[in-house]
Amino acid sequence: MGRVTERRRVIRVRDGVVAARSDTLVGEEPLEIRVNGRRLAVTMRTPGDDFALAVGFLVSEGVLAEPAELARIAYCAGATGPDGANSYNVVDVRLADGVPGPDLSLDRRVLTNSSCGLCGRVSLDTVHTTARWPLPLPPGPVLDPAVLAALPDRLRAAQRVFARTGGLHAAALCAPDGTLLDVREDVGRHNAVDKIVGHALQAGALPLTDAVLLVSGRASFELAQKAVLAGIPVLAAVSAPSALAVDLATEAGLTLVGFLRGASMNVYSGAERLGLAEPAEDPVG
Amino acid sequence: MGRVTERRRVIRVRDGVVAARSDTLVGEEPLEIRVNGRRLAVTMRTPGDDFALAVGFLVSEGVLAEPAELARIAYCAGATGPDGANSYNVVDVRLADGVPGPDLSLDRRVLTNSSCGLCGRVSLDTVHTTARWPLPLPPGPVLDPAVLAALPDRLRAAQRVFARTGGLHAAALCAPDGTLLDVREDVGRHNAVDKIVGHALQAGALPLTDAVLLVSGRASFELAQKAVLAGIPVLAAVSAPSALAVDLATEAGLTLVGFLRGASMNVYSGAERLGLAEPAEDPVG
Repeated sequence: MGRVTERRRVIRVRDGVVAARSDTLVGEEPLEIRVNGRRLAVTMRTPGDDFALAVGFLVSEGVLAEPAELARIAYCAGATGPDGANSYNVVDVRLADGVPGPDLSLDRRVLTNSSCGLCGRVSLDTVHTTARWPLPLPPGPVLDPAVLAALPDRLRAAQRVFARTGGLHAAALCAPDGTLLDVREDVGRHNAVDKIVGHALQAGALPLTDAVLLVSGRASFELAQKAVLAGIPVLAAVSAPSALAVDLATEAGLTLVGFLRGASMNVYSGAERLGLAEPAEDPVG
Repeated sequence: MGRVTERRRVIRVRDGVVAARSDTLVGEEPLEIRVNGRRLAVTMRTPGDDFALAVGFLVSEGVLAEPAELARIAYCAGATGPDGANSYNVVDVRLADGVPGPDLSLDRRVLTNSSCGLCGRVSLDTVHTTARWPLPLPPGPVLDPAVLAALPDRLRAAQRVFARTGGLHAAALCAPDGTLLDVREDVGRHNAVDKIVGHALQAGALPLTDAVLLVSGRASFELAQKAVLAGIPVLAAVSAPSALAVDLATEAGLTLVGFLRGASMNVYSGAERLGLAEPAEDPVG
């Protein structure tokens, strides 16, 4: 079974001094996600929380929104590695009777509309057609910006594997008062968020209407999409958002915060959840 | 047509001072890659270098290895956005006669071997069966570690879009003497490498047997795979590698350097290309 961390030999060069030692690295293995026995996707992930990862992935696809839709989830017993042992890298999600499965065609991530080319508008529309709750997201909660500003330090302190390997992305779910509710790490940034969302679905907590999602890196379109499809009203990123992530946040009623560092942050949409009135335009720009 | 950067309104909070201004963000739009008219993949990317991105993606799939295999590449004229104009987000790659296309099934990224589950071993074997040149990669070149150590600063200086947005990953192709041969940026780390590799194929430069690939972030398995499939003998990352990336590098004869910062680096495989003799084990660990 894959491990969260693995040891490898390394030659370290420090200011011209060369030394050999053993180093702790983050584990990375493929995970095949099957739905009702059929392959849906393969993702490179850090082993651990695999059921939550698969479930969270299906929330982002709009397939799952509540625990009753999930009948069973298991590692495929027949999926053995070269040594004959279960590889624990193939997960099968069985949907409850009557729950429509995902579109397994290669077109599944793209709206089928032959008269329209592919553009950011199509990506935005896909979120609206996939969402399992009404958009835009409802108002609230209201957060103190100072609480938000303190979150990255808390996340870093909770990143146990990162501290040993420097090789992981992290995502955290936080309450409006700043309490860390869940922290997950993965070599893939999307996977860390899927693990958070999957655990929440299994706990019957979706939509997460009273929570903040914090990510250790950038806020891409797909991370904003995952927040919206989990019903999370606030996405805060330590680094920059993309323009399309801001467009989605604006349309879907998601509060999007970027460059969250120390006492400073950029609020790209939904500033009312931070109690911020629209200030006058800064003439200095 | 999508833009590399876009302007969005932002509310900045700096030590309790709130101000509104316009901010420059990185552009992100979907790109659909078609091969001989059939959809192969959709990736979220920063517009620009789209043909190179598509070509580099196909090098990583083992479909392309030399310019003669590429008949034509174009934006699909019929792919119009809501305004009726070409979205410039759909690229069709026409392969030369007789060049086998990619496997378009959902199984295409996984070795078909029903007796074996999915594991890191399968991922490693896929690289060997996909590579268009013999592995392990041939010896050479030999680099001065000091030259390697100077590269991250050069890359950062060359990251023009990052300097304005803070929102991009970068990849650089360098000569053994440290000369920057090419720098590409993208909201997706894989895309930046695909753009580098695609430009190299179009220039008839594959395999890149005398080059270093530098990436601004972590070295995942898939980035090591892209280096190997482009014939690049040295992959240097500013941040951590994964264990599976190290395993691939060791098997494929790729020099893998991580945590390349200032005068220090970790060499995980192929230390002979840095002229480093295997040192005695550091008892301090």
